[in-house]
Amino acid sequence: MSLSFRTARHEDVPAIVALLVDDPISASRTAVPGLDYDSAFAAIDADPGNELIVVESDGEIVGTMQLTFIPGLSRRGAVRLQVEAVRVASRHRSQGIGRKMMEWAAERARERGCGMIQLTSDKARTDAHRFYASLGYEASHEGFKLLLS
Amino acid sequence: MSLSFRTARHEDVPAIVALLVDDPISASRTAVPGLDYDSAFAAIDADPGNELIVVESDGEIVGTMQLTFIPGLSRRGAVRLQVEAVRVASRHRSQGIGRKMMEWAAERARERGCGMIQLTSDKARTDAHRFYASLGYEASHEGFKLLLS
Repeated sequence: MSLSFRTARHEDVPAIVALLVDDPISASRTAVPGLDYDSAFAAIDADPGNELIVVESDGEIVGTMQLTFIPGLSRRGAVRLQVEAVRVASRHRSQGIGRKMMEWAAERARERGCGMIQLTSDKARTDAHRFYASLGYEASHEGFKLLLS
Repeated sequence: MSLSFRTARHEDVPAIVALLVDDPISASRTAVPGLDYDSAFAAIDADPGNELIVVESDGEIVGTMQLTFIPGLSRRGAVRLQVEAVRVASRHRSQGIGRKMMEWAAERARERGCGMIQLTSDKARTDAHRFYASLGYEASHEGFKLLLS
């Protein structure tokens, strides 16, 4: 399978949202105040610290992830890459796409001078945890969320 | 104790770094490639998605935290506030400063239209975990890190 990676365009938003919602854990979450999708895409697209990525195979979007580059004074001034909203289309799972995506993200992190990559994963996603551990990620932190009403 | 909150200025960098390194968990961490502190501060300061905050009492910096505002398509287009690098000066701990800082962060999140706040905390910081839980944060996620060499 040949994969190509690129920054998302506005017309990709429906396909990306379809990937995000095709997930029982995401679907079960409590709604919080948000933008409409077009405004949210525009905010990501205008922000040089964020890259919304789509992965294509034969012209079809089979994966997505959002990369956020966070400068900081911690860890001796390291820039962090944070990876959010990683999804592979359900009918394309277990084909190594997720692994290629994380390898691509690590390469992009190096290009942008990052010292580390971080992500959080819902505690219910035990398969994902084994996957990240297999890539060398250490589950060193507790991930806390507070919904605002 | 009267606290005032403001965005950090370049001349605050040494005080902030002193707070960051006055911590056994941070001090034990493996170094990763980073910027020098002046460049790291400049990158944070130039990025409208990041706010480096200092907390003063009687003209002394007693706390710091970094706020990162992350637009996204997940959770119906919610903007997230991510809080990193939260520190209170050791001789000012257990005086309620951390709680006031997190309340201030939540207010700032609402001002900027966020639907949620997220943070991660090293698994060794069990006191911090009780603190975040007492503020309503849910430890719903595993936090993974990968250092880049």
